[in-house]
Amino acid sequence: MSNRNRLELVLPHWIDEEIDFSRVYGDDAARMQLAIGLARRNVELETGGPFGAAIFREDGELIAAGVNRVVPEQCSIAHAEMTAFMSAQARLGRFRLNDDGARYLLVTSAQPCSMCYGASFWAGIDVLVIGARSEDVMQLSEFDEGPLPADWIGELERRGIEVRRDVWREQARGVFELYRRMAGASY
Amino acid sequence: MSNRNRLELVLPHWIDEEIDFSRVYGDDAARMQLAIGLARRNVELETGGPFGAAIFREDGELIAAGVNRVVPEQCSIAHAEMTAFMSAQARLGRFRLNDDGARYLLVTSAQPCSMCYGASFWAGIDVLVIGARSEDVMQLSEFDEGPLPADWIGELERRGIEVRRDVWREQARGVFELYRRMAGASY
Repeated sequence: MSNRNRLELVLPHWIDEEIDFSRVYGDDAARMQLAIGLARRNVELETGGPFGAAIFREDGELIAAGVNRVVPEQCSIAHAEMTAFMSAQARLGRFRLNDDGARYLLVTSAQPCSMCYGASFWAGIDVLVIGARSEDVMQLSEFDEGPLPADWIGELERRGIEVRRDVWREQARGVFELYRRMAGASY
Repeated sequence: MSNRNRLELVLPHWIDEEIDFSRVYGDDAARMQLAIGLARRNVELETGGPFGAAIFREDGELIAAGVNRVVPEQCSIAHAEMTAFMSAQARLGRFRLNDDGARYLLVTSAQPCSMCYGASFWAGIDVLVIGARSEDVMQLSEFDEGPLPADWIGELERRGIEVRRDVWREQARGVFELYRRMAGASY
């Protein structure tokens, strides 16, 4: 099989080294702290853009962690939410996470862009937990969030996905301030 | 590095064997014929869902081909457009295809779902060429296309991406009829 047929994205090794996958993340605060920590470490260690995301089962088990890898992997799809979805689905061996009847959460340090928003409908999540708002991202950085349906939250809720936002919003905004200080212009 | 950090999607080997990457695809008809052929072969050979997509440079060079691999790869992100974007970016070594100043096209057998629509803003394409419409997909299959902005074409055009649709629409619709006949219920 040629390389053309094998598409690969690699996440930074520090995720396995620094993240405690055995811990129970029992509430949104603990989960968002992890997602923001992923975004912050990704900036500090210069392993990608200022975004982090994680998938949890509702009982608090951490299933997978993702970070933005667009520049290091030269792949426009490698947003934090997308790498978290891919990693979670690979680990559980199914393309709809909640096909086992449990409830799953995507916890993301910033509101999903138009691509990650669309991906959220197919991944099998029940709750979307958001830190910074799109307006924070666009005010504090050069990142574009893309167009969404006017009632983007309603579209999720009508398909059974609950939205909780502004969770640790100030700390989530802080990642973009760090990124700017660290000469994020290189991205 | 553990497997957790390495995310992989594999495309079917018949793509390299059957597709002529050296040919010039000089117009939308030739390009769409390829995209529909990818979708059709993916159904016939039972290597994924009834969707195909390809990236071309405007001079007619085929950069990459993609097919739907959601079920075989157990990954909700593995839509045809997404695998085509990933493959094209890996081949050219950059996350925005048109950063070289040339113009690039995504040619897809069916209108992009909400995820692939969002991904189209970040991939560095200049033209989106569409075969079947969303209403064809939803009329002829069980696939959900997801919510889009009300003026989804205008949103693309305002960001410099031209949309040409209904290209070989009837032939593109035919793939879904084939898929249904082949007991697509297993997906």
